[in-house]
Amino acid sequence: MFSLPKNITIIEVGPRDGLQNEKQLVSTDAKLSFIEGLQKAGITEMELTSFVSPKWVPQMADSKEIVAGAKKTGRQFVLTPNERGITAALDAGADALAVFVGVSDSFNKKNINKSTAESMAALKPLILKLKDQGVFVRACISTAFYCPFEGAINPEDTIRLCSEFVDWGVDELSVADTIGMANPAESYYLFDQLKQQFPNTLITAHFHDTRKMALANIFAALQAGVDRFDASAGGLGGCPFAPGATGNVATEDVVNMMHRMNIETGIDLEGLCEAIEKIESHVSNPINTGMYTLYKNRP
Amino acid sequence: MFSLPKNITIIEVGPRDGLQNEKQLVSTDAKLSFIEGLQKAGITEMELTSFVSPKWVPQMADSKEIVAGAKKTGRQFVLTPNERGITAALDAGADALAVFVGVSDSFNKKNINKSTAESMAALKPLILKLKDQGVFVRACISTAFYCPFEGAINPEDTIRLCSEFVDWGVDELSVADTIGMANPAESYYLFDQLKQQFPNTLITAHFHDTRKMALANIFAALQAGVDRFDASAGGLGGCPFAPGATGNVATEDVVNMMHRMNIETGIDLEGLCEAIEKIESHVSNPINTGMYTLYKNRP
Repeated sequence: MFSLPKNITIIEVGPRDGLQNEKQLVSTDAKLSFIEGLQKAGITEMELTSFVSPKWVPQMADSKEIVAGAKKTGRQFVLTPNERGITAALDAGADALAVFVGVSDSFNKKNINKSTAESMAALKPLILKLKDQGVFVRACISTAFYCPFEGAINPEDTIRLCSEFVDWGVDELSVADTIGMANPAESYYLFDQLKQQFPNTLITAHFHDTRKMALANIFAALQAGVDRFDASAGGLGGCPFAPGATGNVATEDVVNMMHRMNIETGIDLEGLCEAIEKIESHVSNPINTGMYTLYKNRP
Repeated sequence: MFSLPKNITIIEVGPRDGLQNEKQLVSTDAKLSFIEGLQKAGITEMELTSFVSPKWVPQMADSKEIVAGAKKTGRQFVLTPNERGITAALDAGADALAVFVGVSDSFNKKNINKSTAESMAALKPLILKLKDQGVFVRACISTAFYCPFEGAINPEDTIRLCSEFVDWGVDELSVADTIGMANPAESYYLFDQLKQQFPNTLITAHFHDTRKMALANIFAALQAGVDRFDASAGGLGGCPFAPGATGNVATEDVVNMMHRMNIETGIDLEGLCEAIEKIESHVSNPINTGMYTLYKNRP
């Protein structure tokens, strides 16, 4: 039989990735209360917010207040798209930054108006400087399996991109199936390669549940030795390219599957559901993940 | 890397397992049109209906008309709880019957007012007679992993029950995680044992998506060599013990995962979604499975 890790780490992305496309403006207090609830439940690594232009993402306009207000336990990431964002994030007191790029040219062009090569060229000096300063750098890699515009991505292209980040000294690669299209065989193949080729870099799997394969993909990644998973409490965050479709895999469903397989997460499932309850009234879509639905309907 | 089968068979359970708990009475015409649509999409094995008392399950009161009206292609199962049901089913022209029992005593007592041993004692002469008559017999085994009343089921108990059925000559064992609580490691363990111990019996996995692990469990069962899966178009059929929770794994999501892994099913995904569209207006809950949601929101 396959061997599975004894414990895994969840990187909670709800407060940033989950809320960023939320249409209703969520108050800073509601966000901080959500973050506090998540930390109380045992979350130690989290994407807190992002330092982007409030014109692009009005939901993240309170990033300074979020960084100032959130408890500094474990690793609290902030997402930064460029030099201005990095400066603002460091000024605000952030010590773990996340940068992002897609593997596919079309995705980057639509998203940030640069080709993949141009994006990487812009990131390189920023990352080298951050590593000089001793800042933890997480590289989020979108469209690592499929692109909404280009279709299937060659795994070699993803691996080559990861390799550049590794050369620049990034601490973590978060490798994402952005449109929830990867299958477990593809998940196993890519993560097996990444674990073998980059043994000294943290490898994190980021799956979306659009086609209901998220936990199957996570199970396959576990078999490839991955022990870090991005997940969003309540499954918050839709995929903008698939209206009505589910987005990020739900933290509570990942935690439940791990615990049922005797894999420790350090997270208390009930505390996690209580944190989700805090944010539920502030978001526009009903939360109907597996474990939260059972929690709400408990006798 | 693990090896996966080249093709699998779906046993569509929507018309029976999916509709039986549906509160709105679905017309015979609507059911037959659903069944026809499923067959056109390439479904060759299906649970058509059940011959139970219309007092218990009013939705299945038209079982004779369903058997008479449905095209006889491949294997069309009817569920029969007892001798009276078996006689009625054979009289109606059915040639593939499904019988059912739970592994757990409490489940059987709540469900059919008999212990597991009493249920098996009642089934034995019926099955032996059916096999004498050359009828295809499918044994549906509930609570094979967890029971809503007793909790975890010892896999050895499930295997022992299966072994009795095999001794009596049943053609197929459909082994079910009735409350959607099994994890992929448990799925692999049990199905690996069943495939090894009963190499001459068809082994079918039946998963529920209550905790979103259905496709992960199916992926694990594939790794154990299982190549038959029960599934319900549109995910029809809730789990009566978990209000609001998702029930049967959706056929369209299973088919998609298989096709994406280059595993053939013989089923046309678009035709399947068209069949689901036919039944959607007749059922009370909205259908929001992965692939059907994408189908409805297609540009």
